[in-house]
Amino acid sequence: MTLLSTPRTLPGVDQDRSAAGKRCPRRGGAKIKRRSGSGVGSIPSRRNSNSNPTLLFPSHSTQQPIMTLTKVNFITGNKNKLTEVRAILGSVIEVDNQEVDVPEIQGTIEEIAKEKAKRAAEAINGPALTEDTALEFHALKGLPGPYIKSFMESLGHEGLNKMLDGFEDRGAEAVCTFAFCRGPGEEPIIFQGRTVGKIVRPRGPTNFGWDPIFEYEGQTYAEMDKEAKNKISHRYKALVKFQKWLAEGQQ
Amino acid sequence: MTLLSTPRTLPGVDQDRSAAGKRCPRRGGAKIKRRSGSGVGSIPSRRNSNSNPTLLFPSHSTQQPIMTLTKVNFITGNKNKLTEVRAILGSVIEVDNQEVDVPEIQGTIEEIAKEKAKRAAEAINGPALTEDTALEFHALKGLPGPYIKSFMESLGHEGLNKMLDGFEDRGAEAVCTFAFCRGPGEEPIIFQGRTVGKIVRPRGPTNFGWDPIFEYEGQTYAEMDKEAKNKISHRYKALVKFQKWLAEGQQ
Repeated sequence: MTLLSTPRTLPGVDQDRSAAGKRCPRRGGAKIKRRSGSGVGSIPSRRNSNSNPTLLFPSHSTQQPIMTLTKVNFITGNKNKLTEVRAILGSVIEVDNQEVDVPEIQGTIEEIAKEKAKRAAEAINGPALTEDTALEFHALKGLPGPYIKSFMESLGHEGLNKMLDGFEDRGAEAVCTFAFCRGPGEEPIIFQGRTVGKIVRPRGPTNFGWDPIFEYEGQTYAEMDKEAKNKISHRYKALVKFQKWLAEGQQ
Repeated sequence: MTLLSTPRTLPGVDQDRSAAGKRCPRRGGAKIKRRSGSGVGSIPSRRNSNSNPTLLFPSHSTQQPIMTLTKVNFITGNKNKLTEVRAILGSVIEVDNQEVDVPEIQGTIEEIAKEKAKRAAEAINGPALTEDTALEFHALKGLPGPYIKSFMESLGHEGLNKMLDGFEDRGAEAVCTFAFCRGPGEEPIIFQGRTVGKIVRPRGPTNFGWDPIFEYEGQTYAEMDKEAKNKISHRYKALVKFQKWLAEGQQ
């Protein structure tokens, strides 16, 4: 994460470490890979169409941000998520990537997200942004929820549908939880977005997890144009909260 | 865990620490509670009917065990599991109990069990025996598996059945995994038992988790006489392996 020189530094953030997080020695046995590259320009058409500068520097606000982030280290091994995050954040901030292999705990969505960010920050010895996606089935009282990845990998689109065939309610909620941890020993901050839809038989391209079976207003995520999806998706809603927090001085 | 004096000590086990594990100060923020009491005599009728001395001291073997455990610290907060373990092990060993609150990770049954035993051993600073129960639905490719507790709590007996109503296969496998960790930094050893049955609408008393919906040879676990269940249960099979390992010198 690169910080421009500012009158104040971000509490808990060592600028040298955060700028050079990717160069830190491997710690705690965590495997660290890095994909470099800026979201800026990767989808130039989004610069104008999706740029939302008022979020980063609110014109209605006289408050000046404490600092300007020009690059964020997003911890993920999922190229599709990285592409989607760059599509949403790429017009206002460079999204760098590190892949850190940390075990996830069992628990609530929030407990899992916070623990993951803590461990990632320890592994890279600097600020870490992590993302967790959950898919809550209303009929299953929120499950598989944070365990959706295992269920998707084991059952696929048809199996996930069959799990609901015994119930009337096919409602579901896509939940994205970003957790930002300033560094080792710091308490992570949560940014969560939710989109309500329903589980349907697969429609659309099948290259992105459960997108083909999650329907929102008549279209599955997989059927949507990427720009359209990025304006309503659970991930976009969470990222908007993250942008807003950045713009308002991380208070 | 109490060790009788023997010519050799068990590698990795500090007898004072292990004997006094329950008196160790609380470490790593783990909550530790203790239920005292011996399984011996708690169900005297099982002394003869279920005692299996050949497992602890095989008559066909000339090998003498390195040590004799007279008491084991079983880490659980589940009174029903404690009662069941005492019913099976109680005739040959005293089962003491400590409740240690350690987070469980996501992963395979074995990964989860080993991590839990490691953390428990660190929390009590001594040898720890942990137990994990999983319920694998064949139609769900082994899931909910280690996550069955969350599913049972959220969905109950009827919900778990409905999850399978969209599938033909109602086969299931009850899996018990005991993990014994000699102490902090030691690699846990796994003892696993499996019982194959199927998921049915609840029958029998409903005071013990998913017992009423797991049917084995025409009877649900809940319908079975405790002695009958303890001779075929996944937990019994795992404990027999643990007994055998104890008898054969923990090699």
